[in-house]
Amino acid sequence: MRFFIGLDGGGSGSRAQAALADGARTAVLHGGPANVHSDPERALANIRELLERCLQAVADLAPQARRDGAVVVLGLAGASESNAAPMLRAALPWPELQVTGDLDITLAGALQGRAGIVAALGTGSVLARLREGQVQRIGGHGFVLGDEASGAWLGRQALSLALHMHDGLAPQGALGAQLWARFGTVTALLAFARDARPADFATLAPMVLAQDRGGCPQARAILDAACAYLQRAITLLQTGAPALPVVGCGGLGPVLLDRLGASVMPGLTRAEPLGSALDGALWLARSMPHTPNGQKP
Amino acid sequence: MRFFIGLDGGGSGSRAQAALADGARTAVLHGGPANVHSDPERALANIRELLERCLQAVADLAPQARRDGAVVVLGLAGASESNAAPMLRAALPWPELQVTGDLDITLAGALQGRAGIVAALGTGSVLARLREGQVQRIGGHGFVLGDEASGAWLGRQALSLALHMHDGLAPQGALGAQLWARFGTVTALLAFARDARPADFATLAPMVLAQDRGGCPQARAILDAACAYLQRAITLLQTGAPALPVVGCGGLGPVLLDRLGASVMPGLTRAEPLGSALDGALWLARSMPHTPNGQKP
Repeated sequence: MRFFIGLDGGGSGSRAQAALADGARTAVLHGGPANVHSDPERALANIRELLERCLQAVADLAPQARRDGAVVVLGLAGASESNAAPMLRAALPWPELQVTGDLDITLAGALQGRAGIVAALGTGSVLARLREGQVQRIGGHGFVLGDEASGAWLGRQALSLALHMHDGLAPQGALGAQLWARFGTVTALLAFARDARPADFATLAPMVLAQDRGGCPQARAILDAACAYLQRAITLLQTGAPALPVVGCGGLGPVLLDRLGASVMPGLTRAEPLGSALDGALWLARSMPHTPNGQKP
Repeated sequence: MRFFIGLDGGGSGSRAQAALADGARTAVLHGGPANVHSDPERALANIRELLERCLQAVADLAPQARRDGAVVVLGLAGASESNAAPMLRAALPWPELQVTGDLDITLAGALQGRAGIVAALGTGSVLARLREGQVQRIGGHGFVLGDEASGAWLGRQALSLALHMHDGLAPQGALGAQLWARFGTVTALLAFARDARPADFATLAPMVLAQDRGGCPQARAILDAACAYLQRAITLLQTGAPALPVVGCGGLGPVLLDRLGASVMPGLTRAEPLGSALDGALWLARSMPHTPNGQKP
């Protein structure tokens, strides 16, 4: 019998779930990090272990299930950059296994094949349009050069503002004052920035959002710049299409789209995501053509 | 007999020079890296060796010179952040030795005690005003959060522009086209950015300057943003003072001040630096109060 396993693997952990042909699902299982770009050996070990646990979970639902009935989709951060798919397919004992990027499963989960635009705004940022099976992507280039409007970007802008305030280049304001209350000295603030990963900068994003709601004009300016980027990207993705719904994903997607729609783009057509990235991996597994006995189509 | 040694130590190398009381100078001696913040043991070894070679060079000029006649000033990148002065004074066999930051010797060399504003723009950026012995500083906070208008900052802005051009967010232009001719693919460009240190980003700054001279509006926009930052900083440093001369140091200081004065601040009063950072270390050594027999004042 045929069944489906989706896996959503990232740098801080992985999740996987299996579904039978009739839609019955196992529980979501959690596993270790699976960044095939930065640590391929550890990723392989964690993916292998998580898939085996999925197989056991399926056996509880359907004792007749066997490994060769599984259709597996791995959605992995860094998959497209690392060209890891051949290595994973060779090393994992699953005859039908597809490797794809984290954006692909996010899109698949949010839209499940429908046309639309997804603004995935979390620690990083990427926007994409899905239409007639074609994906057009904007951003997703990482923190050093891109990830505009992401949580890490908001946090870094806030820290730069605090330094400008310290130097006298920016007027005193509530956001900067809150940051100085937290860090105390330039030395401490710069030490934080020197060691901070994007996820650490992103921990400051809620402070920017709260100060914007509280009326701080400098927090407002940072979020205005983020929304200006989103407006440009969404306008570009709408080009040539009948107005597509825009779906916000990630911790910041819904929040920033609310703000954008309320002030800058009042006509913005919103939609809720149909499912998570993990749902997207399962949806892609269900969408794969049937190739029995491990034959590739 | 009294003599003076100045040392300018940075992350990629060090230079030192000695001068007698009558002004006669030894040749400039070159030594290894001396970043006391990132690698204090190696910095100590390189400084120790370079100072001993200075002492030998002085002996060629004045055979009666002895170690206890030396007044030594070390100007070191990272000195203020690392609190390395007590360690260096304890470890080095020089009775009169002062440790200061790279900005201090840059200011001392450029202005030699006169009032003025220094715009030190190289791989990083910092501006400072010296007046009546007091220093007010803007910037110098490093590449992640600051160093606006520096070479590294210009290079990073250019790469972000190239990605925007690739995504369709920025129009086609000469600077972006030249960058894509160099890097070829998004993957290659992002690989460069992932591994690049600030000095690597700064290698792209001459391309931005050349494309600006060639009329590329996007290169112009990047340099306009850099000049806007410089204008704000210089205006702030002029506050409350009779118009002070502005001295450009580093590879980009004179270039960007030329551009700023030509278009944005036509009344800008310029001055040439009186000397280098190494000259500044020697000047500070000459300015130290005389404390014979190693007594501290």
